[in-house]
Amino acid sequence: MEPVEQIIDLITVVGVFAFAISGALTAMEKKLDLFGVFIIAFATAVGGGSLRDVIIANRSVFWLTEPIYTYVIIGGTFFSILFRKKLGYLRTTLSLFDTVGLALYTIIGVKIGIQNDLSGVSCIALGTITGAFGGVIRDILVNDVPMIFQKEIYATISIFGGSLYFVLNHYGITGTKIELLAIFTIIILRSLVVHFEIKLPTIYSKN
Amino acid sequence: MEPVEQIIDLITVVGVFAFAISGALTAMEKKLDLFGVFIIAFATAVGGGSLRDVIIANRSVFWLTEPIYTYVIIGGTFFSILFRKKLGYLRTTLSLFDTVGLALYTIIGVKIGIQNDLSGVSCIALGTITGAFGGVIRDILVNDVPMIFQKEIYATISIFGGSLYFVLNHYGITGTKIELLAIFTIIILRSLVVHFEIKLPTIYSKN
Amino acid sequence: MEPVEQIIDLITVVGVFAFAISGALTAMEKKLDLFGVFIIAFATAVGGGSLRDVIIANRSVFWLTEPIYTYVIIGGTFFSILFRKKLGYLRTTLSLFDTVGLALYTIIGVKIGIQNDLSGVSCIALGTITGAFGGVIRDILVNDVPMIFQKEIYATISIFGGSLYFVLNHYGITGTKIELLAIFTIIILRSLVVHFEIKLPTIYSKN
Repeated sequence: MEPVEQIIDLITVVGVFAFAISGALTAMEKKLDLFGVFIIAFATAVGGGSLRDVIIANRSVFWLTEPIYTYVIIGGTFFSILFRKKLGYLRTTLSLFDTVGLALYTIIGVKIGIQNDLSGVSCIALGTITGAFGGVIRDILVNDVPMIFQKEIYATISIFGGSLYFVLNHYGITGTKIELLAIFTIIILRSLVVHFEIKLPTIYSKN
Repeated sequence: MEPVEQIIDLITVVGVFAFAISGALTAMEKKLDLFGVFIIAFATAVGGGSLRDVIIANRSVFWLTEPIYTYVIIGGTFFSILFRKKLGYLRTTLSLFDTVGLALYTIIGVKIGIQNDLSGVSCIALGTITGAFGGVIRDILVNDVPMIFQKEIYATISIFGGSLYFVLNHYGITGTKIELLAIFTIIILRSLVVHFEIKLPTIYSKN
Repeated sequence: MEPVEQIIDLITVVGVFAFAISGALTAMEKKLDLFGVFIIAFATAVGGGSLRDVIIANRSVFWLTEPIYTYVIIGGTFFSILFRKKLGYLRTTLSLFDTVGLALYTIIGVKIGIQNDLSGVSCIALGTITGAFGGVIRDILVNDVPMIFQKEIYATISIFGGSLYFVLNHYGITGTKIELLAIFTIIILRSLVVHFEIKLPTIYSKN
């Protein structure tokens, strides 16, 4: 394995850990029990990639054959429970990790689409599903209308970053550097959106 | 491609467009943002067929390899947003299109079951899932109890039409005319139910 | 087929019947119509096993090729509707059947994981999904936060029994007797939990 790939693997684990914490915090707000907290952490961390694997033929969901994910999520669950009163101080750090997870998962999804010779729109859909739909499944499980359908520019950035990566790839511009470019584009855009509290223009009249 | 098949393809696109509008309208009632409106339109239009493809082995969901569906749904989403104040006038037309979608999707689902040598009850289940479960997924995503579990004779008509098609097929009565017969049976029954506001008999005592 | 397998088949049918009744009762509390009651019964009875089959590659959901399940669920639905005022008297019996279903489904799930050469944690996950996630899908469909995330030691017993079976199997201790041992362990633990109203320790402070 090349050093760059090792770094990406390491960052992926960090992203999964951050997603798991995000899920565990939501579950604890809803006063779920230990099992509930773990399942919501699990669904948040690997739900998007699982949905991707389910809609493509002949794929088992990735975490069945790579148990490392389950261990990281178990770790994230206990970490969240132990430090739940102090995680407020880590909000900025957690948000950055979540953004890193979004970016990595998006590009992984688009790559899988390209490997399956799918059209651009389907590759980008797979990227967005992988990156952003863990949160959708989390919200459905705790009986909320999914947050990314309502409030935040989150999936839109995944669509944008996935499109950038697909188009460059389509014109033969490939390689690890291009991957990193797309990943950092998503991270920077998302950080700007969070920092300046940018929202999608509303489609409803204000009265 | 035969002319009849071309007509069915054309009608399918119209059905998808109608389902997408139905989803987009629901999403706008819930004040979702642009991304949310698109996803609900998408889930309504292709969720039933996706669920069907997911539960049968070795099938990718159909819209991954046929990007036309995604384009039609994007079109339906923007159409709904632009004309959302005027869609009330089109209620009857939209309801007819939705009925056409129900009918076509039901028969497509039953046919896929027959091609996979499944039993009658499983073929009819696939028809009903394909025809009626896009709306179920829509309702779950916006946090409602699915409408077709509560109020309307919708899935029951899909079951009836699917059964008719399966039985005729079972006795060797096949061909495009039989397909059209089953499709029109569903359309007519559903139109009668809507027009006369027929409901399933309640299983609860009235007190 | 050996006599023991025939008995297990018979008990499985009883478990499915019990799960279907549990689903139908929930649906009737929510005043769903006949179709809704059937679908909730169906999802409760085979939803867990369906989710398992969906996340493993190359499997159709089991009920598509074994229509007996659908017939048992239709029977359970009508039984529930007819005797809905008297099912209160059967609460203890139904709870026992439900526990039997949990136990059998858990071990079936773990066995499928072992057949697919999956790691321990993935086998146990498949067991818990098969045994306990029909109820999760039921609760999502009727718009509740899943009960097993909140109140009861249900999934935890499935995890424990599945782990026991996996570990014994891992050390070469196999056979029908070992299966029955794991099944009865789950049944006894669950019965104790129900009888003594044991709960998971809360992770929240009591104020």
